[in-house]
Amino acid sequence: MSTQPEASLQAEVNRLRLQLESLQVKDGSEPIALGNYLLARLEQLKVTKMFGVPGDFNLGFLDLVEDHPTIDWVGNCNELNAAYAADGYARVKEHSIGVVLTTFGVGELSAINGIAGAFSEMVPVLHIAGVPSTTQQKTKPMLHHTLGDGRYDAYIKAAENFTISQAILTDANTAAAEIDRILTDCMTRARPVYLTLPTNLVFEKISSERLKIPLSRLPPPNDPDVEAFVLDEIAKLVDEAADDVVILVDACAIRHDLRSEVNELITKTGFPVFSAPMGKTAVSEKYERYGGIYVGSISHPDIKEKVESAKLILSVGSLKSDFNTGNFTYSIPPSRTIELHSDHTKVQFAAFPGIGMKELLPLLTERLQPCSAAARKIPVPDFTAIVPNEANDVISQAWFWPKMGTFFKPQDVVIAETGTSSFGILDVPLPEKSVFVSQILWGSIGWTIGSTLGAAFAARDIGLNRTILFIGDGSLQLTVQELSVMLRHGLKPIIFVLNNSGYTIERFLHGKHRKYNDISNWKWTSLLGVLGDEDGTLSKSYTVKSKAELEALLEDAAFARADKIQLVEVMMPMHDAPRALVQQAELSGKTNAYVAI
Amino acid sequence: MSTQPEASLQAEVNRLRLQLESLQVKDGSEPIALGNYLLARLEQLKVTKMFGVPGDFNLGFLDLVEDHPTIDWVGNCNELNAAYAADGYARVKEHSIGVVLTTFGVGELSAINGIAGAFSEMVPVLHIAGVPSTTQQKTKPMLHHTLGDGRYDAYIKAAENFTISQAILTDANTAAAEIDRILTDCMTRARPVYLTLPTNLVFEKISSERLKIPLSRLPPPNDPDVEAFVLDEIAKLVDEAADDVVILVDACAIRHDLRSEVNELITKTGFPVFSAPMGKTAVSEKYERYGGIYVGSISHPDIKEKVESAKLILSVGSLKSDFNTGNFTYSIPPSRTIELHSDHTKVQFAAFPGIGMKELLPLLTERLQPCSAAARKIPVPDFTAIVPNEANDVISQAWFWPKMGTFFKPQDVVIAETGTSSFGILDVPLPEKSVFVSQILWGSIGWTIGSTLGAAFAARDIGLNRTILFIGDGSLQLTVQELSVMLRHGLKPIIFVLNNSGYTIERFLHGKHRKYNDISNWKWTSLLGVLGDEDGTLSKSYTVKSKAELEALLEDAAFARADKIQLVEVMMPMHDAPRALVQQAELSGKTNAYVAI
Repeated sequence: MSTQPEASLQAEVNRLRLQLESLQVKDGSEPIALGNYLLARLEQLKVTKMFGVPGDFNLGFLDLVEDHPTIDWVGNCNELNAAYAADGYARVKEHSIGVVLTTFGVGELSAINGIAGAFSEMVPVLHIAGVPSTTQQKTKPMLHHTLGDGRYDAYIKAAENFTISQAILTDANTAAAEIDRILTDCMTRARPVYLTLPTNLVFEKISSERLKIPLSRLPPPNDPDVEAFVLDEIAKLVDEAADDVVILVDACAIRHDLRSEVNELITKTGFPVFSAPMGKTAVSEKYERYGGIYVGSISHPDIKEKVESAKLILSVGSLKSDFNTGNFTYSIPPSRTIELHSDHTKVQFAAFPGIGMKELLPLLTERLQPCSAAARKIPVPDFTAIVPNEANDVISQAWFWPKMGTFFKPQDVVIAETGTSSFGILDVPLPEKSVFVSQILWGSIGWTIGSTLGAAFAARDIGLNRTILFIGDGSLQLTVQELSVMLRHGLKPIIFVLNNSGYTIERFLHGKHRKYNDISNWKWTSLLGVLGDEDGTLSKSYTVKSKAELEALLEDAAFARADKIQLVEVMMPMHDAPRALVQQAELSGKTNAYVAI
Repeated sequence: MSTQPEASLQAEVNRLRLQLESLQVKDGSEPIALGNYLLARLEQLKVTKMFGVPGDFNLGFLDLVEDHPTIDWVGNCNELNAAYAADGYARVKEHSIGVVLTTFGVGELSAINGIAGAFSEMVPVLHIAGVPSTTQQKTKPMLHHTLGDGRYDAYIKAAENFTISQAILTDANTAAAEIDRILTDCMTRARPVYLTLPTNLVFEKISSERLKIPLSRLPPPNDPDVEAFVLDEIAKLVDEAADDVVILVDACAIRHDLRSEVNELITKTGFPVFSAPMGKTAVSEKYERYGGIYVGSISHPDIKEKVESAKLILSVGSLKSDFNTGNFTYSIPPSRTIELHSDHTKVQFAAFPGIGMKELLPLLTERLQPCSAAARKIPVPDFTAIVPNEANDVISQAWFWPKMGTFFKPQDVVIAETGTSSFGILDVPLPEKSVFVSQILWGSIGWTIGSTLGAAFAARDIGLNRTILFIGDGSLQLTVQELSVMLRHGLKPIIFVLNNSGYTIERFLHGKHRKYNDISNWKWTSLLGVLGDEDGTLSKSYTVKSKAELEALLEDAAFARADKIQLVEVMMPMHDAPRALVQQAELSGKTNAYVAI
């Protein structure tokens, strides 16, 4: 973490060098409205959707958005859902960013949990707050949406806790550089950034000169001497391990844009590869040398044995949060571990700050390629999900998840809400080029409805297949109105609502039979009709109460084609949970135990 | 504002004195679980409902809440709605406070806009966040709901911006004093406060000794010499004005518990009295000497003339925000104004810090009572709303609001969403002992659905009549799921949904024909059926498309009885707005103008 400011500085240096080279075209640039400068930058970053809610301090900028040829205004039902959507969009549309626009105070604060989640989970999101004019910022009148005590900086202070950098625009002359600075931070550090856009600056004309040079995503270069030393150290350890090496891929391999480098590494070396939950689908789960999900002591026994007994573990982009590590039960000593991170490398106990994996990995792949023949002889556990034979017709968790595994297709986007769904999906291999989306560290319930909206837009943009969401009835109630926005924009996700009468994950953590974990039962299958599908042509809803009913639905070609938005209410027992959740809850319970009264 | 910390100190001094007096009973007190200590304090404050969402860091405390004999857990659909509900509860249940319970990080941040709104509008709300154990707070593991970088204090830093005081519990020995400190601040300063409750402290046994002494609401006493001087000054000015005095009542008369003192003042002196929008129903709108709503240059001309031509204006608890003053168009010079506030008094240009109105007002009433005969000769404009004769059957804004005025009954709670509703209701006199609830300063759209939930609970507690909400279709979409909670708890509000196809207030501010002010049309009359009224017995929904249909409904005795939750979709033209909104928008437009492109 300590070297990340250097990363931004370096990226800015790279950009400035490029700009210097292009000085000869300088005189030809046209002035541009500040708001359009921002939109031009977003267009360069391939942003096609802006999420948010209109409010009187952002309406002027919204004119420019509505008139923009390639960026569409989505118009969410509320700001938290909009922030979630920007997050989901950014996760699926790699190499772009998510953008959420809110209004001063009321709007931006409603979005802040979504922004904090993007910070926690390392997702590049730009939060634009439309704010009062620069004059009002100085004279501080008691406008609506203020705290009534003249503290115009209170919302900025709040945002500083949850964004990696901020641009508080006060002057049109410096605005372009400020916008570029935070967008560069957003991309290179994979975290949310915050921009205030005063009403009176939106239409101010500024130079468009800087737009000629695209913003740089390049991380800072590694020091060649240190890098060479690190490579030697790693090669030595691999050699000592006599090729008994496993690769463990985690969240930051996705967040810091390492998919192709990791793929090269694993296919050219042939070492067995595993994922942490947050690294699921970073590498293909159908790859022959892929062994499944490692999550400490709640891993399947053969995965746990294989990973923990390896002589050397090459860990790529690890993020050791409680739910990502089986409650901190990794049994891999540092003496057998090499950790590659975006901005540093660890070889056993030695840290090498500034040696980032983006440059290191290709060199490492080349260096380790000769191990390939030996590496491929190491057995890998078979990662499959067998649908169990159960005597009854109840849709159990143990049956449901492997069954769903048979329904997924290549390039599907599979989204799992925190709780039953995020644990249940772990044991199911997803197809080639599918994308798994979940919020395992932040874990804000309701997040997937917003993020499914954003993910479905992104999937459409980049030509992925279906967007499929799994969410419990309790979580869906938090953010339900965003289904309406999916309908309005013609998105066609398949939404499996696991109706198990309340907050099941919490029942397993505490209060199994408590009323506070109960919720109201809704008519789920009438929901889409009420929320905008007036004549019933845009959506279809189903209830499945038995294994046979679910099987029939999954085999229905029209259903599987997903040519309209579909909601499937799946009736499941209240006190059933996936294996991994039960084990996680037992481990969490030990550390979070409440003293009995 | 500067002396408010003194107010808390003084209240604590009062409390300590009382405790000292009771030292003789000290030995008899039983130990109590910390969580139960908190609940006992809330019970003393007559809190009967706790709003919030369960999460794994508050489940232990929830056991205590669920088992408490007089405090019920409400269980909201999401945390923002819960915070809104706590706010609405506190507004209607005067002399109590609102309470919202959330979980660490994700939950508390989702609630923060609701808490900030309570700060802005001066509503006493306690926000309890269930947080990791005190050990985890020190060792800072990467738990779910953390930012992943060990900053366990980030949420506290955010909360500090929007609460008047905070208690970060770390030690059971000091917890009771900390809880008492912030609850005293909450009541005496009428602002939200923030409490973190670590999982391991909830069941720790502490002394119940302090519970024997109720918390004090007393504001600090006025300095008698200064107070006497101020009274003389005011009396002199009233005398000079030859009794041509008007009284203007505003928000802080309600928030700082002055209803009865103000009522004494106006009835014993007989001066004409007016309200600002945020002071509506602080005094009876049926009182013979009441002249209506003064809101600067957008007041009705006869009200404007009467207030602005008076020789002296006695202003009680004013809060001069844009929407509360007709965009800062008060035409009342300080030389003709006396301002009474909770913690200071202004006489013309002279400020008297520390002279608060709670003690001053009764003395002033006594002093001015002899003016009564002369004062009653001053004419007062007649505040009535005449239903206009319109030739067509369209439900216009100009017709709708006066018509609704005929429907209200004494002790109704009338809630108006920011926008069309909050402006439309201003010109309609409400009945005796009715309570008007709106969020004119903070103006967070969607707020009234949550606050109606809280207000309806409070109204039931204290024996008020019906709870009646006016909200637009755009605003309702932000927080719609909370209707489900109303159904679950058997609340029976009447909800008028003004269906005018989008964000009408914004159309008048900017973007009249822009798509970004459009929203999806929902099947409003099917909503309650989907959100929990499974067999249709708990609710009733209606659509009214014409004046005749609305009139027939309002005359239906079963409807007016409000013995189940009722939703009325009122079809209104998209580009119609109440007079006051049109004028406010014109004035706002001048200060917030976007430069045309």
